Amino acid sequence: MNKIINNPSEVVNEMLAGMIDAHPDRLALLKESKVILRKEKKQNKVALVSGGGSGHEPAHAGYVGYGMLDAAVSGNVFASPSPDQVQAAIEAVNAGAGVLMVVKNYSGDVMNFSMAAELAEMDDIEVAYVVVDDDVSISKTQKNAGRRGIAGTIFVHKIAGALAEQGAPLAEVKAVAEQVIANTRSMGMALSACTVPEAGRPSFSIGEDEMEIGMGIHGEAGIKRCKITSADEIVQALLDPVIEDLQLQSGDEVALMTNGLGATPLMELYIANHSVSLQLAKRGIAIGKTFVGNYMTSLEMAGCSISLLKLDSRLKDLLNAPADTPALHV
Amino acid sequence: MNKIINNPSEVVNEMLAGMIDAHPDRLALLKESKVILRKEKKQNKVALVSGGGSGHEPAHAGYVGYGMLDAAVSGNVFASPSPDQVQAAIEAVNAGAGVLMVVKNYSGDVMNFSMAAELAEMDDIEVAYVVVDDDVSISKTQKNAGRRGIAGTIFVHKIAGALAEQGAPLAEVKAVAEQVIANTRSMGMALSACTVPEAGRPSFSIGEDEMEIGMGIHGEAGIKRCKITSADEIVQALLDPVIEDLQLQSGDEVALMTNGLGATPLMELYIANHSVSLQLAKRGIAIGKTFVGNYMTSLEMAGCSISLLKLDSRLKDLLNAPADTPALHV
Repeated sequence: MNKIINNPSEVVNEMLAGMIDAHPDRLALLKESKVILRKEKKQNKVALVSGGGSGHEPAHAGYVGYGMLDAAVSGNVFASPSPDQVQAAIEAVNAGAGVLMVVKNYSGDVMNFSMAAELAEMDDIEVAYVVVDDDVSISKTQKNAGRRGIAGTIFVHKIAGALAEQGAPLAEVKAVAEQVIANTRSMGMALSACTVPEAGRPSFSIGEDEMEIGMGIHGEAGIKRCKITSADEIVQALLDPVIEDLQLQSGDEVALMTNGLGATPLMELYIANHSVSLQLAKRGIAIGKTFVGNYMTSLEMAGCSISLLKLDSRLKDLLNAPADTPALHV
Repeated sequence: MNKIINNPSEVVNEMLAGMIDAHPDRLALLKESKVILRKEKKQNKVALVSGGGSGHEPAHAGYVGYGMLDAAVSGNVFASPSPDQVQAAIEAVNAGAGVLMVVKNYSGDVMNFSMAAELAEMDDIEVAYVVVDDDVSISKTQKNAGRRGIAGTIFVHKIAGALAEQGAPLAEVKAVAEQVIANTRSMGMALSACTVPEAGRPSFSIGEDEMEIGMGIHGEAGIKRCKITSADEIVQALLDPVIEDLQLQSGDEVALMTNGLGATPLMELYIANHSVSLQLAKRGIAIGKTFVGNYMTSLEMAGCSISLLKLDSRLKDLLNAPADTPALHV
């Protein structure tokens, strides 16, 4: 297996230890529960918790810090954390103003985070949660668990985190998180597979000259497998469904995330980002803020996703509010 | 070719355009010369210029901004920029206090940057340069072009940039850059090859279960090709020569960069970083600051490098001084 690891069953523990080694001044670890916390707790602030399966780094522990999350809970690779783990995070970050959990829409995550909310409420902690379902590659009308949560989740962390930092109450922080979710759509594509360390071999395969449009961040099937085309055509295949689903019009303003899935060089992400910028300009859609980089990955998968968040002036202000985390600074 | 690109001969131009699209408020582009500049010029500050072949992103354009570089010059992929390009950068950033160029030790870069310095001096601009040669995989006594410059270069950008920002004169900024170079060593390893877009196929190959220790950031041969071992053993193979060459002792303090070459997931970099931290602790060497991420890459090469900078209190202060660039914030 082509990986820099020691023991496949210890990758999450060693990764979290390595994060604490790198950021001893700002992050703390609840080792048993695999929860990364801010080192300093701010009283009477709504606390934000996110998390899910590992393998999507820097999501979510990389977003723990001022202006974003208070804690991130790590499951095993591509596996939901248990309700007990999430409950430990809730109890650790509760600062008297309630806890908002940002959950990606996968059935295991939704089940375990909501069970944790019930457990915490028995301890008289006020807990709310929102479910991010930004991936437009799945139709909302299909009889399934609904759309998956992917890179657009970072917009929710950023904006809800900024409002929580300003001292807003739980209901208001939850409402803005829901507004971001309603205004965010994403779509991704993959050029290569990835290998879960404990499995030891790729969970699917893509031909040398093939790509898959609409593939999920755990390798879930997309909507089209085809020959690799140009960056402009790839971007169009991702961007058109996003724009259509958001019903964007000329004159609208968006935030843009051109996200790498792990093994795609920054050079290619900037090329894709240029293509997105040109295609949005042609449609008269303004870009208020851009993020380019590996924000929500799938281990060493090659590929990218594009996320748009339709902005209004309040969302834009919150997006531009200060944030200071290992993986994102504003 | 497994890449998100349009035209192999346009990758650098489109990448630079995508950087400007992402950072229109802070970066500007000299299109003809492929130079990325800070949008605002600070008068009477020593200006820092770096650059080299493309394919190492975020190096170097990602380090243009407050507290680090004033300009970065991009050659084609893995090819030095021309003297004319470098001269254009020098002339654009000169703010009356002279220009320091930070050059990685490759013969093309050294030749073209030094020729540019001569050209600029004919225009009465004071120009100095330093050459970074941190890669310990090559012995200094070998009859060759000397050690290569790799990820340790970022420490030079950071510290010389901080001192320039504080208003120090050119001779002092050059001296601190030379101190950082004298105190920095790195070594890397690769798990897979990379493909230069215009070549269209990998420039070398590594077997499925093999790795190469000491490999350069353009795929230059390393010192040992062998079966992949554990993260702890890989780290030891990189770290021991670095520590020995720096003659580090128990009680010393270092800055640490655990750098990814492009396709290695952050999970593995944090695992490697944990291993480095444990091995340094065992030797009684303190870590004053840690950077983990893709800082100096080789397109989609999988692998990592480890860089150590031996600190004193002044270097530590400069390393911790504020920096605000697309790829590095302090």
